[in-house]
Amino acid sequence: MRRTLQHPARLVPLAFLGAVVVGTLLMMLPGARVEPGGTPFVTALFTATSAVCVTGLSVVDTATYWTGFGQVLLTVLTQIGGFGIMALATLLALLVSQRLGLRSRLMAQAEDSSLKLGDVRWVLGRIALTQAAFEIVIAVIVGGRFWLGYDFPLGKAAWYGVFHAVQAFNNAGFALFSNSLVGFVDDAWICVPLTIGVIAGGIGYPVLFELFREIGKPSKWSTHTRLTVFGGIVLLVFGFLTILGLEWNNPGTLGPLGVGEKVLAAFFQDAMTRSGGFNTVDVGAFHSETLAVSTGLMFIGGGSASTAGGIKLTTFFLLAFVILAELRGEPDVVIGKRRIAESTQRQAITVALLGVGLVAAGTFGLLEATDGVAFDAALFEVTSAFATVGLSTGITPTLPNSGQIILVVLMFIGRVGTIAVGSAIALNTQRRLYRYAEERPIVG
Amino acid sequence: MRRTLQHPARLVPLAFLGAVVVGTLLMMLPGARVEPGGTPFVTALFTATSAVCVTGLSVVDTATYWTGFGQVLLTVLTQIGGFGIMALATLLALLVSQRLGLRSRLMAQAEDSSLKLGDVRWVLGRIALTQAAFEIVIAVIVGGRFWLGYDFPLGKAAWYGVFHAVQAFNNAGFALFSNSLVGFVDDAWICVPLTIGVIAGGIGYPVLFELFREIGKPSKWSTHTRLTVFGGIVLLVFGFLTILGLEWNNPGTLGPLGVGEKVLAAFFQDAMTRSGGFNTVDVGAFHSETLAVSTGLMFIGGGSASTAGGIKLTTFFLLAFVILAELRGEPDVVIGKRRIAESTQRQAITVALLGVGLVAAGTFGLLEATDGVAFDAALFEVTSAFATVGLSTGITPTLPNSGQIILVVLMFIGRVGTIAVGSAIALNTQRRLYRYAEERPIVG
Ligand SMILES: [K+]
Ligand SMILES: [K+]
Repeated sequence: MRRTLQHPARLVPLAFLGAVVVGTLLMMLPGARVEPGGTPFVTALFTATSAVCVTGLSVVDTATYWTGFGQVLLTVLTQIGGFGIMALATLLALLVSQRLGLRSRLMAQAEDSSLKLGDVRWVLGRIALTQAAFEIVIAVIVGGRFWLGYDFPLGKAAWYGVFHAVQAFNNAGFALFSNSLVGFVDDAWICVPLTIGVIAGGIGYPVLFELFREIGKPSKWSTHTRLTVFGGIVLLVFGFLTILGLEWNNPGTLGPLGVGEKVLAAFFQDAMTRSGGFNTVDVGAFHSETLAVSTGLMFIGGGSASTAGGIKLTTFFLLAFVILAELRGEPDVVIGKRRIAESTQRQAITVALLGVGLVAAGTFGLLEATDGVAFDAALFEVTSAFATVGLSTGITPTLPNSGQIILVVLMFIGRVGTIAVGSAIALNTQRRLYRYAEERPIVG
Repeated sequence: MRRTLQHPARLVPLAFLGAVVVGTLLMMLPGARVEPGGTPFVTALFTATSAVCVTGLSVVDTATYWTGFGQVLLTVLTQIGGFGIMALATLLALLVSQRLGLRSRLMAQAEDSSLKLGDVRWVLGRIALTQAAFEIVIAVIVGGRFWLGYDFPLGKAAWYGVFHAVQAFNNAGFALFSNSLVGFVDDAWICVPLTIGVIAGGIGYPVLFELFREIGKPSKWSTHTRLTVFGGIVLLVFGFLTILGLEWNNPGTLGPLGVGEKVLAAFFQDAMTRSGGFNTVDVGAFHSETLAVSTGLMFIGGGSASTAGGIKLTTFFLLAFVILAELRGEPDVVIGKRRIAESTQRQAITVALLGVGLVAAGTFGLLEATDGVAFDAALFEVTSAFATVGLSTGITPTLPNSGQIILVVLMFIGRVGTIAVGSAIALNTQRRLYRYAEERPIVG
């Protein structure tokens, strides 16, 4: 029984690994690259991993390095990656929740205890529908703007609309302009739909589903949905005010902009840290303080079973409630009249601390692999890879192969690892046959 | 009852605050400073806090700024601070452990449930004895070496021996040489006794006591003692190999030394991160990677109820076991056939995450207060203050008053906060009157 239940959790890394391998091979085809000759292996591997893991970090200029075929490949890999992560994470959450009550909330018709093929199809269909609906609406608005506002030919405008819509909802962040979206820093018709796409994709299907049904009744929301929505809003506001305040006069970022543009750019850049990956200002020109705050926001990331990365909003805010309960001397961790299971608390600690360890190890590795890269730039880039954000201070293309491989590993583990680990431990908890005597070491 | 039990935990911050205030006033006396006129307030406050909180960070050159009177003051404040922290933390641990079984291990005669005046005296006496014994032995060896090896006059040699012995056992780290102990990098007669003092002081009285009784019987040790001893050894070896490997060829640190001297210097500097604060090589010349690893080691710190700072060895390794249990799907966290209480796990998370938050906020504040300080240097200095280590890349004396005040606050909270918070929550856990329905948000 245990082995069977472990099985689906093991499928996730294998499925993603397969997609990365196929993507790498396709990216190496001569037809994918503008220059003659095939793409070097590490470049193809990095780009395919970045697309499948919906990160958006790139080692080459997406706009000029890849052919139209290469860019279509990038779009397909991103779409598959985003769909795959939402679908697999949601299905695993359903499997876990057979014992936990989420299932009945998500699928009213589910009565018996196994996940039937019909259920799986229904979930996959719903997710595909949601993904397509958001992407089409965003593509129409953004493509229309390119057509009407920037005199792109209709075909090119439509392609640019589709490309960036897919990148937005799937929280990837590749762009068909060499400086990402810096040219559109003041264009709300471009920035706002893409931001909405990024936020919607980063909420996660289980929460989107609950919101579709009961958007006006927060009192009926599950603790998971409340943590995701309210936590997300808190971080959005915090990040927005911090970026706006710190960068207001920075001549390299918000300084030259008018007040309205500053507000738009700060909000856009704030939303991108969780984990869209586009940029309309030069992230490399951020003050150290802004980089530090952005690093923290990227590390936290977005919603569970979403296209966003990081340790996830629920993990972060759940730990905040654990600390609060502890400081108040409360024996249970209670969020809105619901007690959080001890096992869930332990999962949250595990995910958060493994994330810290991975980012620390990755930063150390990147510093070792390079000369003269500043510590905060290395930490930022590593966090961006781990949390599959895709923002960059500009060092990624300059890294040696060893440094790029480190980021590849971080993107993969960051994307696949949290889900695989989270689900595996949730599905795999052993029965307690006997208990040892309790002991309480002095702490602190 | 609850209020009474909270009371002793509240005493700790007040006692330390009192010592800092008195120390600051005395440091401002004209007789304490070599130059005419009193010491500026922030300099006196910083130095007194650094001494009382046994940190050893300094904004002025201890060797030339302070008179003999000032240096004696520094010694007294350090001694009081070190004794105070060990005594109060041990007593609080005893109070907590009335319900927990530590008490009977530590004091065989304790039978009833209150902490009697006689017990308190007995504990205080034992701690004072331990402190004095270590300091005297170290002072004799180190002082003797100054006398015989460096032709110091006997009186000066004795004073230098006492000063540095007190600094070592109390894990403070002020030195009477302008470049700390760089001049003695190859002198095992100086380095080894001071290292032993730092390690012994950083183990903590409850563990020292158990070791005195049952040094040869690790199987009888409490989980707390085993975590502290074995965890400490693991980190010592890890830090030693890392520093040795990374700095082997660095011309600014170990590069110019012979092999034996490299080993001695790497071991010395490794031990100092937890949290002695002396240095025999220039910490500011460390590679980024070494600074990063040292920052991590400083953050972890030493043993509970010791003169070392940080989140403590038990906290760190307990969390490691939590992760291990989680990854294995084990319902209980078991260390050597002892189950760790859920409440202790939550305390460890709280201490660790509050530490992360404090260091992050402090680093952010320091970057805001300064111009052009590198992120890793700020992080290192803030961690050194929070974990009361006292190592410095050299920026502390150059900081503006606002930056120095930030470090003062970090030293105080880092020293007093972990104990106060840890004890307060351990003593203060409310009874559970009713429980809410359980819920398990998706994590990761
Ligand atoms: K991304
Ligand atoms: K120290």
